[in-house]
Amino acid sequence: MATTVTAPSPSVPSTPLLKDELDIVIPTIRNLDFLEMWRPFFQPYHLIIVQDGDPAKTIKVPEGFDYELYNRNDINRILGPKASCISFKDSACRCFGYMVSKKKYVFTIDDDCFVAKDPSGKDINALEQHIKNLLSPSTPFFFNTLYDPYREGADFVRGYPFSLREGAKTAVSHGLWLNIPDYDAPTQMVKPRERNTRYVDAVMTVPKGTLFPMCGMNLAFDRELIGPAMYFGLMGDGQPIGRYDDMWAGWCMKVICDHLSLGVKTGLPYLWHSKASNPFVNLKKEYKGIFWQEDIIPFFQNATIPKECDTVQKCYIALSEQVREKLGKIDPYFVKLADAMVTWIEAWDELNPSAAAVENGKA
Amino acid sequence: MATTVTAPSPSVPSTPLLKDELDIVIPTIRNLDFLEMWRPFFQPYHLIIVQDGDPAKTIKVPEGFDYELYNRNDINRILGPKASCISFKDSACRCFGYMVSKKKYVFTIDDDCFVAKDPSGKDINALEQHIKNLLSPSTPFFFNTLYDPYREGADFVRGYPFSLREGAKTAVSHGLWLNIPDYDAPTQMVKPRERNTRYVDAVMTVPKGTLFPMCGMNLAFDRELIGPAMYFGLMGDGQPIGRYDDMWAGWCMKVICDHLSLGVKTGLPYLWHSKASNPFVNLKKEYKGIFWQEDIIPFFQNATIPKECDTVQKCYIALSEQVREKLGKIDPYFVKLADAMVTWIEAWDELNPSAAAVENGKA
Repeated sequence: MATTVTAPSPSVPSTPLLKDELDIVIPTIRNLDFLEMWRPFFQPYHLIIVQDGDPAKTIKVPEGFDYELYNRNDINRILGPKASCISFKDSACRCFGYMVSKKKYVFTIDDDCFVAKDPSGKDINALEQHIKNLLSPSTPFFFNTLYDPYREGADFVRGYPFSLREGAKTAVSHGLWLNIPDYDAPTQMVKPRERNTRYVDAVMTVPKGTLFPMCGMNLAFDRELIGPAMYFGLMGDGQPIGRYDDMWAGWCMKVICDHLSLGVKTGLPYLWHSKASNPFVNLKKEYKGIFWQEDIIPFFQNATIPKECDTVQKCYIALSEQVREKLGKIDPYFVKLADAMVTWIEAWDELNPSAAAVENGKA
Repeated sequence: MATTVTAPSPSVPSTPLLKDELDIVIPTIRNLDFLEMWRPFFQPYHLIIVQDGDPAKTIKVPEGFDYELYNRNDINRILGPKASCISFKDSACRCFGYMVSKKKYVFTIDDDCFVAKDPSGKDINALEQHIKNLLSPSTPFFFNTLYDPYREGADFVRGYPFSLREGAKTAVSHGLWLNIPDYDAPTQMVKPRERNTRYVDAVMTVPKGTLFPMCGMNLAFDRELIGPAMYFGLMGDGQPIGRYDDMWAGWCMKVICDHLSLGVKTGLPYLWHSKASNPFVNLKKEYKGIFWQEDIIPFFQNATIPKECDTVQKCYIALSEQVREKLGKIDPYFVKLADAMVTWIEAWDELNPSAAAVENGKA
């Protein structure tokens, strides 16, 4: 079994939202001191820690947190041969945590991300904002110029069709970062001193048919609605590419959300991204991705999922077939990735049998 | 001739942007005292005032402004029978000003809109922000999570294809409103006290394939790129509908921008919208539109313009044919509107012969 620690009941804020329905997934290679700063917000929740790298290393978790921790040995033991779909030495390994969670919602965060302050100087409860985003509808079918119409003080503007004001279920909430922006290696190199200091007080829906670069640093989603599409691909050790794990998940997820009429939001909440990763190391990881994305983006822009695919799993398998057929021509890596996409779904259904049964019953 | 006043050279801010390349178009039925507050920002520019309602009435313009003023008699004399395409007793008449302008850029503003303040308390130079929006590219083909990547302190995030970073030419800049939000009559009635107090410090591109409700209160555009699509339709006196003039222009314009790969931005600048119009009067004007828009939106979402249409005029004529054929089934009003769309283009080309010649030469 993986390490499991149940925390004593500490002094926590009153009635944290979705306390028993949300897991926080953290991929890491180091001690989780960063949790100290998040304690007021995260302590009521259960953590799933996915330890990357050397399994012999002990990761220290600050006292008082309720968590389970999986290292590579745990992943191999739990998934057996299917563990091949989980990346190693790359934060893509975090998606194992999505798979073993038993909760309806997941929030995932990087361990170099801290609590940001809003313009009034108040600490931002990022998790609370994500939950608000997920629990209110999205508006993927028509753009609202005053941003999220469900937010206090806002609404649908003149000219917004009334039939669309019920909105769509929100599957994903993509949060942003103050301080170090999420730039690729070339941009990091060109603008080494650029910091994001602009607090944009908005949440918006990414419109249907529009792709966006989803970053995994500060991300929440509804596992029941979209979980099986949140595969972070094959990255890192033994793979020709890194730092495209969240992008891959974002493209796949968005095409599937569009097909299933689910919503994806981006904007608030911000967190404080403390430290730029090394641009030279990043360039090495990214450089194939920088070429490949020129073909991958049009591929996803034109991907259509057959009408009869009415579950995330079926959509994902249909997408994997198109990846194999169309992107496989670019590089054999994509054939391996398409295989891994199928393995991922098999593993997901194995670890989530009741959900899988529901899906099959529905089929 | 219309009334023309050339102002003496007053004390104005140094080097106003695009001073000789931009007209400010204002539709009005009253004295333009609101210009006093805008003096520091607008005085260097030329104004085109379109007087709605009784032509016998004299509209007072504060001293020192350089303007031309057109009333209904002027419009009838200049356009002859084609004046039928210009609405009367509705702010839709403003588009006559777009037609007679000889400048590359137009900014249009309502006369109940005042200078807003940014969160630091500073007066917002709305026109300057519009010009910045128009002079920098748009990103309609892929969503950037840090909003306008061309703004200082921002850039394209990781995962944004490099081939798309040149962006597209910006045709339209849609600004927003603090205080009274631009709500339809039902929302005004339900939320009579709602005020927009949220300053969202962002400019973003409305993605390709996405429609939005374009409000004419605070709007700038590049006449050369998109002018002939900025027809505000048949509204007001003698028509079954009002308050959909800007919406109509926005839908037509966006479909054409998408076809021609032009960009549309929304967000900053804000202005201060002082006064809610009467929701009961508005409901009367809007109520057919509220029904019709349920069909109009899917119509525009599915409208495709033939590939060979390579000018705004050709696109607009193609769109008018589809309006006649498809929306004409809903109500005879749309057949009349389709006719007016054609008349509008004829009148535009008549008043803008050199541009029309270029278009024809290109054809």
